[in-house]
Amino acid sequence: MVWCSGWKLASAVSNAGGLGLIGSGSMDAAILKIHIDKARQATNFPFGVNIPLIYSHAAEIIDLVVKENIPVVFTSAGNPATYINKLKDKGIKVVHVVSSVRFAEKAEKAGVDGIVAEGFEAGGHNGIEETTSFTLIPALRKSTSLPLIAAGGIATGRGMLAAMALGADGVQMGTRFAASIESSAHINFKEKILQLKEGGTRLYLRKVSPVRMIRNAFAIEIENAENRGADASELLNILGTGRSKKGIFEGDLEGGELEIGQISSIINEIKPAAKIIEEVIGEYNDARKELRLSKYKF
Amino acid sequence: MVWCSGWKLASAVSNAGGLGLIGSGSMDAAILKIHIDKARQATNFPFGVNIPLIYSHAAEIIDLVVKENIPVVFTSAGNPATYINKLKDKGIKVVHVVSSVRFAEKAEKAGVDGIVAEGFEAGGHNGIEETTSFTLIPALRKSTSLPLIAAGGIATGRGMLAAMALGADGVQMGTRFAASIESSAHINFKEKILQLKEGGTRLYLRKVSPVRMIRNAFAIEIENAENRGADASELLNILGTGRSKKGIFEGDLEGGELEIGQISSIINEIKPAAKIIEEVIGEYNDARKELRLSKYKF
Repeated sequence: MVWCSGWKLASAVSNAGGLGLIGSGSMDAAILKIHIDKARQATNFPFGVNIPLIYSHAAEIIDLVVKENIPVVFTSAGNPATYINKLKDKGIKVVHVVSSVRFAEKAEKAGVDGIVAEGFEAGGHNGIEETTSFTLIPALRKSTSLPLIAAGGIATGRGMLAAMALGADGVQMGTRFAASIESSAHINFKEKILQLKEGGTRLYLRKVSPVRMIRNAFAIEIENAENRGADASELLNILGTGRSKKGIFEGDLEGGELEIGQISSIINEIKPAAKIIEEVIGEYNDARKELRLSKYKF
Repeated sequence: MVWCSGWKLASAVSNAGGLGLIGSGSMDAAILKIHIDKARQATNFPFGVNIPLIYSHAAEIIDLVVKENIPVVFTSAGNPATYINKLKDKGIKVVHVVSSVRFAEKAEKAGVDGIVAEGFEAGGHNGIEETTSFTLIPALRKSTSLPLIAAGGIATGRGMLAAMALGADGVQMGTRFAASIESSAHINFKEKILQLKEGGTRLYLRKVSPVRMIRNAFAIEIENAENRGADASELLNILGTGRSKKGIFEGDLEGGELEIGQISSIINEIKPAAKIIEEVIGEYNDARKELRLSKYKF
Protein backbone atom coordinates (compact mmCIF):
# COMPACT_ATOMS: atom_id res chain seq x y z
CA MET A 1 0.00 0.00 0.00
CA VAL A 2 2.97 2.26 -0.68
CA TRP A 3 1.74 5.75 -1.71
CA CYS A 4 -1.89 4.76 -0.94
CA SER A 5 -2.27 4.42 2.81
CA GLY A 6 -1.52 7.64 4.69
CA TRP A 7 -3.33 9.11 7.71
CA LYS A 8 -6.53 9.75 5.75
CA LEU A 9 -7.13 6.16 4.72
CA ALA A 10 -5.88 4.66 7.99
CA SER A 11 -8.13 6.85 10.15
CA ALA A 12 -11.15 6.36 7.86
CA VAL A 13 -10.76 2.56 8.10
CA SER A 14 -10.38 2.68 11.89
CA ASN A 15 -13.39 4.97 12.22
CA ALA A 16 -15.44 2.49 10.20
CA GLY A 17 -14.62 -0.49 12.42
CA GLY A 18 -11.51 -1.86 10.74
CA LEU A 19 -7.90 -1.59 11.81
CA GLY A 20 -6.38 1.11 9.62
CA LEU A 21 -2.69 0.90 8.80
CA ILE A 22 -0.37 3.70 7.78
CA GLY A 23 1.98 2.30 5.15
CA SER A 24 5.38 3.70 6.05
CA GLY A 25 7.19 2.27 3.03
CA SER A 26 7.19 5.66 1.33
CA MET A 27 8.01 7.74 4.45
CA ASP A 28 10.96 8.70 6.58
CA ALA A 29 10.38 9.14 10.33
CA ALA A 30 9.61 12.86 10.09
CA ILE A 31 6.87 12.30 7.49
CA LEU A 32 5.47 9.33 9.40
CA LYS A 33 5.28 11.51 12.55
CA ILE A 34 3.07 13.97 10.67
CA HIS A 35 0.80 11.12 9.52
CA ILE A 36 0.54 9.68 13.05
CA ASP A 37 -0.38 13.09 14.48
CA LYS A 38 -3.00 13.73 11.82
CA ALA A 39 -4.48 10.22 12.17
CA ARG A 40 -4.80 10.78 15.92
CA GLN A 41 -6.71 13.97 15.25
CA ALA A 42 -8.98 12.15 12.80
CA THR A 43 -9.85 9.07 14.89
CA ASN A 44 -10.12 7.96 18.51
CA PHE A 45 -9.82 4.32 17.48
CA PRO A 46 -6.56 2.39 17.33
CA PHE A 47 -4.60 2.23 14.07
CA GLY A 48 -1.32 0.56 13.17
CA VAL A 49 1.76 1.12 11.04
CA ASN A 50 3.09 -1.20 8.33
CA ILE A 51 6.89 -1.32 8.10
CA PRO A 52 8.75 -3.03 5.25
CA LEU A 53 11.87 -4.18 7.09
CA ILE A 54 14.21 -4.07 4.09
CA TYR A 55 13.38 -0.38 3.74
CA SER A 56 16.31 1.99 4.41
CA HIS A 57 14.38 3.99 7.02
CA ALA A 58 13.16 0.90 8.94
CA ALA A 59 15.33 1.46 12.03
CA GLU A 60 14.27 5.08 12.60
CA ILE A 61 10.64 4.17 11.92
CA ILE A 62 10.78 1.41 14.53
CA ASP A 63 12.16 3.96 17.02
CA LEU A 64 9.31 6.32 16.18
CA VAL A 65 6.47 3.79 16.57
CA VAL A 66 7.94 2.77 19.94
CA LYS A 67 8.15 6.41 21.06
CA GLU A 68 4.64 7.09 19.79
CA ASN A 69 3.20 4.00 21.46
CA ILE A 70 1.53 2.70 18.31
CA PRO A 71 -0.46 -0.33 19.55
CA VAL A 72 0.14 -2.65 16.57
CA VAL A 73 2.81 -2.90 13.91
CA PHE A 74 2.66 -4.98 10.73
CA THR A 75 6.13 -5.92 9.51
CA SER A 76 6.89 -7.25 6.04
CA ALA A 77 9.76 -7.95 3.63
CA GLY A 78 12.43 -8.95 6.12
CA ASN A 79 13.15 -10.79 9.35
CA PRO A 80 11.00 -9.62 12.29
CA ALA A 81 13.60 -10.99 14.77
CA THR A 82 15.79 -7.91 14.21
CA TYR A 83 13.41 -5.47 15.90
CA ILE A 84 10.87 -7.58 17.74
CA ASN A 85 12.21 -7.16 21.28
CA LYS A 86 12.19 -3.39 20.98
CA LEU A 87 8.51 -3.53 20.03
CA LYS A 88 7.34 -6.29 22.39
CA ASP A 89 9.09 -4.66 25.36
CA LYS A 90 6.69 -1.74 24.93
CA GLY A 91 3.66 -4.03 24.63
CA ILE A 92 3.31 -3.39 20.91
CA LYS A 93 1.61 -6.24 19.01
CA VAL A 94 3.64 -7.42 16.04
CA VAL A 95 2.01 -9.02 13.00
CA HIS A 96 4.29 -10.29 10.25
CA VAL A 97 3.41 -10.65 6.57
CA VAL A 98 4.57 -13.89 4.90
CA SER A 99 4.16 -15.70 1.60
CA SER A 100 5.22 -19.14 2.84
CA VAL A 101 5.04 -21.55 5.76
CA ARG A 102 8.83 -21.38 6.01
CA PHE A 103 8.78 -17.64 6.75
CA ALA A 104 5.78 -18.02 9.08
CA GLU A 105 7.67 -20.56 11.18
CA LYS A 106 10.62 -18.16 11.41
CA ALA A 107 8.33 -15.30 12.44
CA GLU A 108 6.55 -17.42 15.04
CA LYS A 109 9.90 -18.46 16.49
CA ALA A 110 10.86 -14.79 16.68
CA GLY A 111 7.74 -14.23 18.80
CA VAL A 112 5.24 -12.40 16.56
CA ASP A 113 1.61 -12.11 17.69
CA GLY A 114 -0.02 -12.79 14.34
CA ILE A 115 0.61 -13.74 10.72
CA VAL A 116 -0.62 -12.26 7.46
CA ALA A 117 -0.81 -14.91 4.70
CA GLU A 118 -0.16 -13.07 1.45
CA GLY A 119 -1.02 -15.06 -1.66
CA PHE A 120 0.36 -14.85 -5.22
CA GLU A 121 -2.63 -12.75 -6.30
CA ALA A 122 -1.63 -9.86 -4.01
CA GLY A 123 -0.30 -6.60 -5.42
CA GLY A 124 3.27 -5.41 -4.90
CA HIS A 125 6.03 -7.58 -3.43
CA ASN A 126 5.38 -11.25 -3.56
CA GLY A 127 6.82 -14.66 -2.66
CA ILE A 128 9.09 -16.71 -4.93
CA GLU A 129 7.01 -19.88 -4.45
CA GLU A 130 3.97 -18.21 -6.11
CA THR A 131 1.63 -19.88 -3.61
CA THR A 132 -1.96 -18.66 -4.05
CA SER A 133 -4.37 -17.84 -1.22
CA PHE A 134 -6.30 -21.10 -1.80
CA THR A 135 -3.13 -23.06 -1.04
CA LEU A 136 -1.37 -20.73 1.40
CA ILE A 137 -4.20 -20.16 3.91
CA PRO A 138 -4.81 -23.87 4.74
CA ALA A 139 -1.05 -24.58 4.77
CA LEU A 140 -0.46 -21.77 7.30
CA ARG A 141 -3.53 -22.73 9.32
CA LYS A 142 -2.02 -26.19 9.67
CA SER A 143 1.37 -24.86 10.73
CA THR A 144 0.39 -22.22 13.31
CA SER A 145 -2.24 -21.47 15.94
CA LEU A 146 -1.41 -17.74 15.89
CA PRO A 147 -4.12 -15.36 14.63
CA LEU A 148 -4.07 -15.72 10.84
CA ILE A 149 -5.03 -12.85 8.54
CA ALA A 150 -5.53 -13.63 4.84
CA ALA A 151 -4.44 -11.19 2.12
CA GLY A 152 -4.35 -11.41 -1.66
CA GLY A 153 -7.42 -11.81 -3.87
CA ILE A 154 -9.88 -10.50 -1.27
CA ALA A 155 -12.02 -7.43 -2.01
CA THR A 156 -15.52 -8.51 -1.02
CA GLY A 157 -17.53 -10.09 1.79
CA ARG A 158 -17.64 -13.35 -0.14
CA GLY A 159 -13.85 -13.27 -0.42
CA MET A 160 -13.66 -12.71 3.34
CA LEU A 161 -15.99 -15.65 3.99
CA ALA A 162 -13.98 -17.90 1.67
CA ALA A 163 -10.74 -16.97 3.45
CA MET A 164 -12.33 -17.78 6.79
CA ALA A 165 -13.70 -21.09 5.49
CA LEU A 166 -10.07 -21.94 4.62
CA GLY A 167 -8.99 -21.22 8.19
CA ALA A 168 -8.21 -17.49 8.40
CA ASP A 169 -9.32 -15.47 11.44
CA GLY A 170 -9.62 -12.24 9.47
CA VAL A 171 -8.59 -10.53 6.26
CA GLN A 172 -6.36 -7.68 5.14
CA MET A 173 -7.50 -5.80 2.05
CA GLY A 174 -5.14 -3.57 0.10
CA THR A 175 -6.33 -3.32 -3.49
CA ARG A 176 -9.96 -2.54 -2.56
CA PHE A 177 -8.80 0.44 -0.43
CA ALA A 178 -6.20 1.64 -2.94
CA ALA A 179 -9.27 2.58 -4.99
CA SER A 180 -11.02 4.35 -2.09
CA ILE A 181 -11.74 8.06 -1.80
CA GLU A 182 -9.30 8.38 1.11
CA SER A 183 -6.43 6.58 -0.64
CA SER A 184 -3.58 9.02 -1.25
CA ALA A 185 -2.90 7.51 -4.66
CA HIS A 186 -3.19 9.74 -7.74
CA ILE A 187 -6.67 9.83 -9.28
CA ASN A 188 -5.20 8.51 -12.56
CA PHE A 189 -4.08 5.36 -10.72
CA LYS A 190 -7.43 4.90 -8.99
CA GLU A 191 -9.30 5.24 -12.28
CA LYS A 192 -6.87 2.85 -13.96
CA ILE A 193 -7.74 0.22 -11.31
CA LEU A 194 -11.41 0.44 -12.32
CA GLN A 195 -10.55 -0.23 -15.96
CA LEU A 196 -8.44 -3.33 -15.38
CA LYS A 197 -9.63 -6.60 -16.88
CA GLU A 198 -8.42 -10.13 -16.20
CA GLY A 199 -4.72 -10.42 -16.93
CA GLY A 200 -4.40 -6.67 -16.25
CA THR A 201 -1.74 -7.35 -13.62
CA ARG A 202 1.19 -9.76 -13.87
CA LEU A 203 4.08 -10.89 -11.72
CA TYR A 204 7.38 -9.38 -12.85
CA LEU A 205 10.99 -9.15 -11.69
CA ARG A 206 11.21 -12.77 -10.53
CA LYS A 207 15.01 -12.58 -10.91
CA VAL A 208 15.19 -9.56 -8.58
CA SER A 209 12.25 -9.81 -6.15
CA PRO A 210 8.81 -10.68 -7.55
CA VAL A 211 6.35 -7.77 -7.87
CA ARG A 212 2.75 -7.80 -9.11
CA MET A 213 1.94 -4.70 -11.12
CA ILE A 214 -0.25 -3.42 -13.92
CA ARG A 215 0.87 -4.45 -17.41
CA ASN A 216 1.58 -0.95 -18.72
CA ALA A 217 4.34 0.30 -21.06
CA PHE A 218 6.96 0.08 -18.29
CA ALA A 219 5.86 -3.46 -17.35
CA ILE A 220 5.98 -4.55 -20.99
CA GLU A 221 9.55 -3.19 -21.21
CA ILE A 222 10.41 -5.42 -18.24
CA GLU A 223 8.50 -8.32 -19.82
CA ASN A 224 10.41 -8.03 -23.08
CA ALA A 225 13.71 -7.89 -21.24
CA GLU A 226 12.74 -10.97 -19.19
CA ASN A 227 11.67 -12.84 -22.31
CA ARG A 228 15.05 -12.31 -23.92
CA GLY A 229 16.79 -13.53 -20.74
CA ALA A 230 17.86 -10.25 -19.09
CA ASP A 231 19.66 -10.78 -15.76
CA ALA A 232 18.94 -9.08 -12.43
CA SER A 233 21.33 -6.18 -12.99
CA GLU A 234 19.85 -5.34 -16.38
CA LEU A 235 16.34 -5.47 -14.89
CA LEU A 236 17.33 -3.24 -11.97
CA ASN A 237 18.74 -0.82 -14.52
CA ILE A 238 15.42 -0.62 -16.37
CA LEU A 239 13.60 -0.31 -13.03
CA GLY A 240 15.70 2.64 -11.86
CA THR A 241 14.50 4.44 -8.74
CA GLY A 242 11.26 6.15 -7.73
CA ARG A 243 9.13 4.14 -10.17
CA SER A 244 6.26 3.40 -7.78
CA LYS A 245 6.05 7.05 -6.65
CA LYS A 246 6.01 8.11 -10.30
CA GLY A 247 3.13 5.76 -11.07
CA ILE A 248 0.99 5.54 -7.96
CA PHE A 249 1.50 9.01 -6.44
CA GLU A 250 2.22 11.14 -9.50
CA GLY A 251 -0.15 9.32 -11.85
CA ASP A 252 2.24 8.42 -14.67
CA LEU A 253 0.26 5.45 -16.00
CA GLU A 254 2.75 4.28 -18.62
CA GLY A 255 6.15 5.10 -17.09
CA GLY A 256 5.37 4.26 -13.47
CA GLU A 257 5.37 1.01 -11.50
CA LEU A 258 1.68 0.44 -10.69
CA GLU A 259 1.52 -2.12 -7.87
CA ILE A 260 -1.95 -3.59 -7.41
CA GLY A 261 -3.57 -6.97 -6.78
CA GLN A 262 -5.21 -9.33 -9.27
CA ILE A 263 -8.64 -8.79 -7.66
CA SER A 264 -8.58 -5.26 -9.13
CA SER A 265 -10.34 -6.83 -12.13
CA ILE A 266 -13.64 -6.99 -10.20
CA ILE A 267 -13.45 -3.45 -8.70
CA ASN A 268 -15.45 -0.86 -10.62
CA GLU A 269 -16.07 2.09 -8.33
CA ILE A 270 -14.04 4.44 -6.14
CA LYS A 271 -15.85 4.57 -2.80
CA PRO A 272 -15.34 5.97 0.69
CA ALA A 273 -13.58 3.51 3.03
CA ALA A 274 -16.60 3.42 5.37
CA LYS A 275 -18.88 2.40 2.50
CA ILE A 276 -16.46 -0.34 1.45
CA ILE A 277 -16.40 -1.79 4.96
CA GLU A 278 -20.18 -1.60 5.27
CA GLU A 279 -20.60 -3.45 1.96
CA VAL A 280 -18.00 -6.10 2.80
CA ILE A 281 -19.62 -6.86 6.17
CA GLY A 282 -23.10 -6.86 4.65
CA GLU A 283 -22.07 -9.27 1.89
CA TYR A 284 -20.19 -11.47 4.37
CA ASN A 285 -23.29 -11.80 6.55
CA ASP A 286 -25.56 -12.45 3.57
CA ALA A 287 -23.24 -15.07 2.10
CA ARG A 288 -22.94 -16.74 5.49
CA LYS A 289 -26.71 -16.98 5.79
CA GLU A 290 -26.96 -18.24 2.21
CA LEU A 291 -24.46 -21.05 2.88
CA ARG A 292 -26.30 -21.91 6.07
CA LEU A 293 -29.60 -22.21 4.23
CA SER A 294 -27.90 -23.65 1.19
CA LYS A 295 -29.34 -26.43 -0.88
CA TYR A 296 -25.85 -27.89 -0.88
CA LYS A 297 -26.30 -30.08 2.16
CA PHE A 298 -25.09 -33.64 2.24
CA MET B 1 -5.65 -35.88 -15.10
CA VAL B 2 -3.79 -37.38 -18.02
CA TRP B 3 -2.46 -40.87 -17.09
CA CYS B 4 -4.35 -40.73 -13.74
CA SER B 5 -8.03 -41.04 -14.45
CA GLY B 6 -8.98 -44.26 -16.17
CA TRP B 7 -12.02 -46.51 -15.58
CA LYS B 8 -10.89 -47.49 -12.08
CA LEU B 9 -10.79 -43.96 -10.69
CA ALA B 10 -13.85 -42.73 -12.62
CA SER B 11 -16.03 -45.62 -11.46
CA ALA B 12 -14.78 -45.40 -7.86
CA VAL B 13 -15.66 -41.68 -7.74
CA SER B 14 -19.10 -42.27 -9.25
CA ASN B 15 -19.77 -45.16 -6.85
CA ALA B 16 -18.90 -42.85 -3.94
CA GLY B 17 -21.37 -40.12 -4.97
CA GLY B 18 -19.22 -37.93 -7.17
CA LEU B 19 -19.22 -37.65 -10.94
CA GLY B 20 -16.22 -39.65 -12.09
CA LEU B 21 -14.51 -38.59 -15.32
CA ILE B 22 -12.38 -40.70 -17.62
CA GLY B 23 -9.53 -38.48 -18.84
CA SER B 24 -9.21 -39.31 -22.52
CA GLY B 25 -6.14 -37.12 -23.11
CA SER B 26 -3.88 -40.15 -23.10
CA MET B 27 -6.19 -42.46 -25.09
CA ASP B 28 -7.22 -43.15 -28.65
CA ALA B 29 -10.82 -44.22 -29.29
CA ALA B 30 -10.06 -47.95 -29.04
CA ILE B 31 -8.45 -47.56 -25.60
CA LEU B 32 -11.23 -45.25 -24.41
CA LYS B 33 -13.80 -47.86 -25.48
CA ILE B 34 -12.13 -50.41 -23.20
CA HIS B 35 -12.23 -47.91 -20.31
CA ILE B 36 -15.90 -47.09 -20.90
CA ASP B 37 -16.82 -50.79 -20.95
CA LYS B 38 -14.87 -51.51 -17.77
CA ALA B 39 -16.31 -48.47 -15.98
CA ARG B 40 -19.82 -49.63 -16.89
CA GLN B 41 -19.05 -53.00 -15.36
CA ALA B 42 -17.72 -51.31 -12.22
CA THR B 43 -20.54 -48.82 -11.56
CA ASN B 44 -24.23 -48.34 -12.22
CA PHE B 45 -23.90 -44.60 -11.69
CA PRO B 46 -23.27 -42.05 -14.44
CA PHE B 47 -19.71 -41.03 -15.30
CA GLY B 48 -18.31 -38.62 -17.87
CA VAL B 49 -15.38 -38.25 -20.22
CA ASN B 50 -12.93 -35.34 -20.33
CA ILE B 51 -11.73 -34.46 -23.83
CA PRO B 52 -8.87 -32.00 -24.50
CA LEU B 53 -10.01 -30.54 -27.82
CA ILE B 54 -6.53 -29.75 -29.14
CA TYR B 55 -5.66 -33.43 -28.81
CA SER B 56 -5.06 -35.25 -32.10
CA HIS B 57 -7.65 -37.96 -31.34
CA ALA B 58 -10.39 -35.48 -30.30
CA ALA B 59 -12.63 -36.06 -33.36
CA GLU B 60 -12.71 -39.86 -33.05
CA ILE B 61 -13.22 -39.59 -29.28
CA ILE B 62 -16.20 -37.27 -29.80
CA ASP B 63 -17.68 -39.85 -32.21
CA LEU B 64 -17.17 -42.58 -29.64
CA VAL B 65 -18.81 -40.74 -26.69
CA VAL B 66 -21.79 -39.97 -28.94
CA LYS B 67 -22.06 -43.60 -30.00
CA GLU B 68 -21.66 -44.77 -26.41
CA ASN B 69 -24.25 -42.31 -25.09
CA ILE B 70 -21.96 -40.91 -22.40
CA PRO B 71 -24.29 -38.53 -20.44
CA VAL B 72 -21.78 -35.74 -19.79
CA VAL B 73 -18.60 -34.58 -21.48
CA PHE B 74 -16.04 -32.12 -20.08
CA THR B 75 -14.16 -30.36 -22.85
CA SER B 76 -10.96 -28.40 -22.36
CA ALA B 77 -8.07 -26.78 -24.23
CA GLY B 78 -9.90 -25.66 -27.34
CA ASN B 79 -13.10 -24.23 -28.72
CA PRO B 80 -16.23 -26.21 -27.77
CA ALA B 81 -18.14 -24.74 -30.76
CA THR B 82 -16.40 -27.23 -33.09
CA TYR B 83 -18.16 -30.30 -31.69
CA ILE B 84 -21.00 -29.02 -29.53
CA ASN B 85 -23.91 -29.70 -31.92
CA LYS B 86 -22.86 -33.30 -32.36
CA LEU B 87 -22.97 -33.74 -28.57
CA LYS B 88 -26.06 -31.66 -27.78
CA ASP B 89 -28.07 -33.35 -30.56
CA LYS B 90 -27.74 -36.58 -28.59
CA GLY B 91 -28.72 -34.89 -25.30
CA ILE B 92 -25.16 -35.05 -23.96
CA LYS B 93 -24.41 -32.35 -21.37
CA VAL B 94 -21.28 -30.36 -22.23
CA VAL B 95 -19.17 -28.67 -19.56
CA HIS B 96 -16.22 -26.58 -20.72
CA VAL B 97 -13.06 -25.86 -18.72
CA VAL B 98 -11.83 -22.23 -18.85
CA SER B 99 -9.19 -20.08 -17.21
CA SER B 100 -10.76 -16.72 -18.09
CA VAL B 101 -14.03 -14.84 -18.44
CA ARG B 102 -13.21 -14.30 -22.10
CA PHE B 103 -13.18 -18.04 -22.83
CA ALA B 104 -16.25 -18.62 -20.63
CA GLU B 105 -18.25 -16.10 -22.67
CA LYS B 106 -17.18 -17.86 -25.87
CA ALA B 107 -18.20 -21.25 -24.43
CA GLU B 108 -21.56 -19.94 -23.22
CA LYS B 109 -22.23 -18.49 -26.66
CA ALA B 110 -21.42 -21.89 -28.16
CA GLY B 111 -24.14 -23.37 -25.93
CA VAL B 112 -22.35 -25.30 -23.18
CA ASP B 113 -24.32 -26.45 -20.13
CA GLY B 114 -21.74 -25.61 -17.50
CA ILE B 115 -18.34 -24.03 -16.88
CA VAL B 116 -15.30 -25.23 -14.95
CA ALA B 117 -13.26 -22.28 -13.57
CA GLU B 118 -9.66 -23.47 -13.48
CA GLY B 119 -7.33 -21.24 -11.45
CA PHE B 120 -3.58 -20.66 -11.73
CA GLU B 121 -2.94 -23.11 -8.89
CA ALA B 122 -4.27 -26.06 -10.94
CA GLY B 123 -1.93 -28.72 -12.27
CA GLY B 124 -1.24 -29.25 -15.95
CA HIS B 125 -2.33 -26.85 -18.68
CA ASN B 126 -3.11 -23.38 -17.48
CA GLY B 127 -4.23 -19.92 -18.61
CA ILE B 128 -1.90 -17.16 -19.77
CA GLU B 129 -3.53 -14.57 -17.48
CA GLU B 130 -2.45 -16.56 -14.38
CA THR B 131 -5.76 -15.76 -12.67
CA THR B 132 -6.06 -17.59 -9.33
CA SER B 133 -9.20 -19.27 -8.02
CA PHE B 134 -9.82 -16.41 -5.55
CA THR B 135 -10.07 -14.00 -8.48
CA LEU B 136 -11.45 -16.28 -11.21
CA ILE B 137 -14.46 -17.75 -9.37
CA PRO B 138 -16.13 -14.39 -8.49
CA ALA B 139 -15.31 -12.98 -11.94
CA LEU B 140 -16.97 -15.94 -13.66
CA ARG B 141 -19.89 -15.94 -11.22
CA LYS B 142 -20.51 -12.33 -12.24
CA SER B 143 -20.33 -13.10 -15.95
CA THR B 144 -22.51 -16.22 -16.20
CA SER B 145 -25.55 -17.88 -14.61
CA LEU B 146 -24.54 -21.31 -15.92
CA PRO B 147 -23.61 -23.97 -13.34
CA LEU B 148 -20.09 -23.05 -12.21
CA ILE B 149 -17.60 -25.68 -11.03
CA ALA B 150 -14.41 -24.48 -9.34
CA ALA B 151 -11.07 -26.24 -9.92
CA GLY B 152 -7.52 -25.43 -8.83
CA GLY B 153 -6.33 -25.34 -5.24
CA ILE B 154 -9.17 -27.46 -3.87
CA ALA B 155 -8.44 -30.76 -2.10
CA THR B 156 -10.53 -30.55 1.09
CA GLY B 157 -14.03 -29.83 2.36
CA ARG B 158 -12.88 -26.40 3.52
CA GLY B 159 -11.60 -25.67 0.03
CA MET B 160 -14.97 -26.75 -1.37
CA LEU B 161 -16.80 -24.46 1.07
CA ALA B 162 -14.51 -21.54 0.19
CA ALA B 163 -15.14 -22.06 -3.53
CA MET B 164 -18.89 -22.08 -2.90
CA ALA B 165 -18.67 -18.95 -0.74
CA LEU B 166 -17.05 -17.29 -3.78
CA GLY B 167 -19.99 -18.31 -5.96
CA ALA B 168 -19.24 -21.80 -7.30
CA ASP B 169 -22.00 -24.41 -7.46
CA GLY B 170 -19.60 -27.30 -7.08
CA VAL B 171 -15.96 -28.29 -7.34
CA GLN B 172 -13.74 -30.45 -9.52
CA MET B 173 -10.74 -32.04 -7.81
CA GLY B 174 -7.84 -33.45 -9.80
CA THR B 175 -4.72 -33.39 -7.64
CA ARG B 176 -6.40 -35.00 -4.60
CA PHE B 177 -7.51 -37.97 -6.75
CA ALA B 178 -4.22 -38.25 -8.64
CA ALA B 179 -2.92 -39.49 -5.27
CA SER B 180 -5.77 -41.96 -4.73
CA ILE B 181 -5.50 -45.75 -4.68
CA GLU B 182 -7.54 -45.99 -7.89
CA SER B 183 -5.47 -43.43 -9.83
CA SER B 184 -3.67 -45.14 -12.69
CA ALA B 185 -0.55 -43.03 -12.09
CA HIS B 186 2.71 -44.80 -11.24
CA ILE B 187 3.26 -45.36 -7.50
CA ASN B 188 6.48 -43.29 -7.71
CA PHE B 189 4.43 -40.30 -8.86
CA LYS B 190 1.80 -40.76 -6.14
CA GLU B 191 4.48 -40.98 -3.47
CA LYS B 192 6.23 -37.93 -4.91
CA ILE B 193 2.97 -35.94 -4.49
CA LEU B 194 3.00 -36.74 -0.75
CA GLN B 195 6.54 -35.38 -0.38
CA LEU B 196 5.94 -32.04 -2.11
CA LYS B 197 6.41 -28.89 -0.05
CA GLU B 198 5.38 -25.33 -0.89
CA GLY B 199 7.00 -24.21 -4.12
CA GLY B 200 7.19 -27.87 -5.18
CA THR B 201 5.27 -27.09 -8.36
CA ARG B 202 5.81 -24.14 -10.71
CA LEU B 203 4.32 -22.81 -13.89
CA TYR B 204 6.56 -23.44 -16.91
CA LEU B 205 6.47 -23.14 -20.68
CA ARG B 206 4.72 -19.75 -20.71
CA LYS B 207 6.11 -19.13 -24.22
CA VAL B 208 4.56 -22.37 -25.51
CA SER B 209 1.43 -23.07 -23.42
CA PRO B 210 1.69 -22.69 -19.63
CA VAL B 211 1.91 -25.95 -17.64
CA ARG B 212 2.11 -26.44 -13.87
CA MET B 213 4.40 -29.31 -12.95
CA ILE B 214 6.73 -30.56 -10.26
CA ARG B 215 10.10 -28.82 -10.15
CA ASN B 216 12.23 -31.90 -10.92
CA ALA B 217 15.41 -32.20 -13.01
CA PHE B 218 13.46 -31.90 -16.27
CA ALA B 219 11.58 -28.81 -15.00
CA ILE B 220 14.83 -27.19 -13.88
CA GLU B 221 16.25 -27.77 -17.37
CA ILE B 222 13.23 -25.89 -18.74
CA GLU B 223 13.63 -23.22 -16.04
CA ASN B 224 17.28 -22.63 -16.93
CA ALA B 225 16.43 -22.39 -20.61
CA GLU B 226 13.65 -19.90 -19.86
CA ASN B 227 15.94 -17.84 -17.65
CA ARG B 228 18.44 -17.45 -20.45
CA GLY B 229 15.68 -16.39 -22.85
CA ALA B 230 15.04 -19.59 -24.83
CA ASP B 231 12.28 -19.23 -27.43
CA ALA B 232 9.28 -21.51 -27.98
CA SER B 233 11.02 -23.77 -30.50
CA GLU B 234 14.00 -24.38 -28.22
CA LEU B 235 11.63 -25.16 -25.34
CA LEU B 236 9.60 -27.57 -27.47
CA ASN B 237 12.85 -29.25 -28.40
CA ILE B 238 13.74 -29.82 -24.74
CA LEU B 239 10.18 -30.99 -24.04
CA GLY B 240 10.23 -33.60 -26.81
CA THR B 241 7.33 -36.06 -26.85
CA GLY B 242 5.84 -38.48 -24.34
CA ARG B 243 7.18 -36.60 -21.30
CA SER B 244 4.02 -36.81 -19.21
CA LYS B 245 3.62 -40.54 -19.87
CA LYS B 246 7.26 -41.03 -18.90
CA GLY B 247 6.75 -39.21 -15.61
CA ILE B 248 3.21 -39.89 -14.49
CA PHE B 249 2.60 -43.37 -15.93
CA GLU B 250 6.10 -44.84 -16.03
CA GLY B 251 7.31 -43.19 -12.82
CA ASP B 252 10.46 -41.45 -14.09
CA LEU B 253 10.57 -38.75 -11.41
CA GLU B 254 13.47 -36.73 -12.82
CA GLY B 255 13.12 -37.10 -16.59
CA GLY B 256 9.31 -36.96 -16.81
CA GLU B 257 6.81 -34.10 -16.91
CA LEU B 258 4.95 -34.41 -13.60
CA GLU B 259 1.74 -32.38 -13.92
CA ILE B 260 0.09 -31.70 -10.55
CA GLY B 261 -1.60 -28.83 -8.73
CA GLN B 262 -0.14 -26.51 -6.08
CA ILE B 263 -2.48 -27.94 -3.41
CA SER B 264 -0.38 -31.14 -3.54
CA SER B 265 1.67 -29.51 -0.75
CA ILE B 266 -1.06 -30.31 1.79
CA ILE B 267 -1.71 -33.90 0.64
CA ASN B 268 0.08 -36.53 2.72
CA GLU B 269 -1.68 -39.84 2.22
CA ILE B 270 -2.73 -42.05 -0.69
CA LYS B 271 -6.34 -43.03 0.01
CA PRO B 272 -9.23 -44.80 -1.71
CA ALA B 273 -11.45 -42.42 -3.72
CA ALA B 274 -14.48 -43.26 -1.55
CA LYS B 275 -12.59 -42.31 1.61
CA ILE B 276 -11.48 -39.00 0.03
CA ILE B 277 -15.08 -38.12 -0.86
CA GLU B 278 -16.32 -39.09 2.59
CA GLU B 279 -13.69 -36.88 4.24
CA VAL B 280 -14.33 -33.94 1.92
CA ILE B 281 -18.08 -34.02 2.55
CA GLY B 282 -17.57 -34.46 6.29
CA GLU B 283 -15.18 -31.51 6.49
CA TYR B 284 -17.46 -29.40 4.29
CA ASN B 285 -20.40 -30.02 6.62
CA ASP B 286 -18.32 -29.39 9.76
CA ALA B 287 -16.83 -26.17 8.40
CA ARG B 288 -20.27 -24.99 7.34
CA LYS B 289 -21.61 -25.54 10.84
CA GLU B 290 -18.55 -23.84 12.30
CA LEU B 291 -19.07 -20.73 10.16
CA ARG B 292 -22.76 -20.71 11.08
CA LEU B 293 -21.96 -20.80 14.79
CA SER B 294 -18.91 -18.62 14.33
CA LYS B 295 -17.91 -15.88 16.70
CA TYR B 296 -17.25 -13.80 13.61
CA LYS B 297 -20.68 -12.25 13.47
CA PHE B 298 -21.12 -8.54 12.87
